[in-house]
Amino acid sequence: MSTGAPSVALHPDVAVLEFLLGTWVGEGQGHYPTINAFGYGEEVRFWHVGKPFLAYSQRTWALEDGKPLHGEAGYWRPKPDGVVELVIAMPTGHVEVEEGTLEGTTLSLASRLVGATSTAKAVTAITRRVQVDDDVLHYVMSMAAVGAPLQEHLTAELRRVA
Amino acid sequence: MSTGAPSVALHPDVAVLEFLLGTWVGEGQGHYPTINAFGYGEEVRFWHVGKPFLAYSQRTWALEDGKPLHGEAGYWRPKPDGVVELVIAMPTGHVEVEEGTLEGTTLSLASRLVGATSTAKAVTAITRRVQVDDDVLHYVMSMAAVGAPLQEHLTAELRRVA
Repeated sequence: MSTGAPSVALHPDVAVLEFLLGTWVGEGQGHYPTINAFGYGEEVRFWHVGKPFLAYSQRTWALEDGKPLHGEAGYWRPKPDGVVELVIAMPTGHVEVEEGTLEGTTLSLASRLVGATSTAKAVTAITRRVQVDDDVLHYVMSMAAVGAPLQEHLTAELRRVA
Repeated sequence: MSTGAPSVALHPDVAVLEFLLGTWVGEGQGHYPTINAFGYGEEVRFWHVGKPFLAYSQRTWALEDGKPLHGEAGYWRPKPDGVVELVIAMPTGHVEVEEGTLEGTTLSLASRLVGATSTAKAVTAITRRVQVDDDVLHYVMSMAAVGAPLQEHLTAELRRVA
């Protein structure tokens, strides 16, 4: 996992995403037509191993009792001309391939593919917007799922803790 | 990312995969028509958070100098009747959805989907066979990619170290 700070130099291709590196903790809110609105605690980590991508993992927990809710893991791949590719796996049985752009410290991505196992819920599209201002990371994740059109599902504000 | 031993009880649905839990280290060999054969070092981790899946991460390195080669992260989802679902993201820009069966301590899975970012190489199918005998894990990963038919790509033998 090498989630700690590596001793290797950052690959020059990921210098544009250096502002993401570290561990971020905070709280978010989730809502969707098919579920009750909920709050959650969250930890996000971005790290690198000297190769042209950032590794990413995330976990959330219930605010009341700390029980784990969601999690995901993947890789961010910066490409020329501000293009960023993202691949993610989720314990819900979904995988995502997203592509989009980096402008300043704001990432705006949309799925070109959401894959699912046989028993996973139907998710047809996801978009992610991640904005970093110094040590504050704010994101909005929108989703089209179980017949509902693309709409905001999750929003959170995290602070860099390491 | 809570990769350590959690204090929560194993979810009963993943009891059938308990034999995977822990950290595994060893060496593997890779070959494919389009590349030179190569050896690699590898660490694989399986852990749980009390929910009905196992989290998984893997990294490999060059035997000569320890430089990172591949990595992947995902989730194993046991289902009734010996069915197992697997979702994986890879820094190569690929995601995988695999499904298959568990018999004893042998997992045999095949991709129902391999997704890729715009700049990733063409991979059309992957199969994985993982066999555990006590503290030894052996796997074979086969792949159809860049126009070549499905064939063995990676094989490794790992030992449980934690």
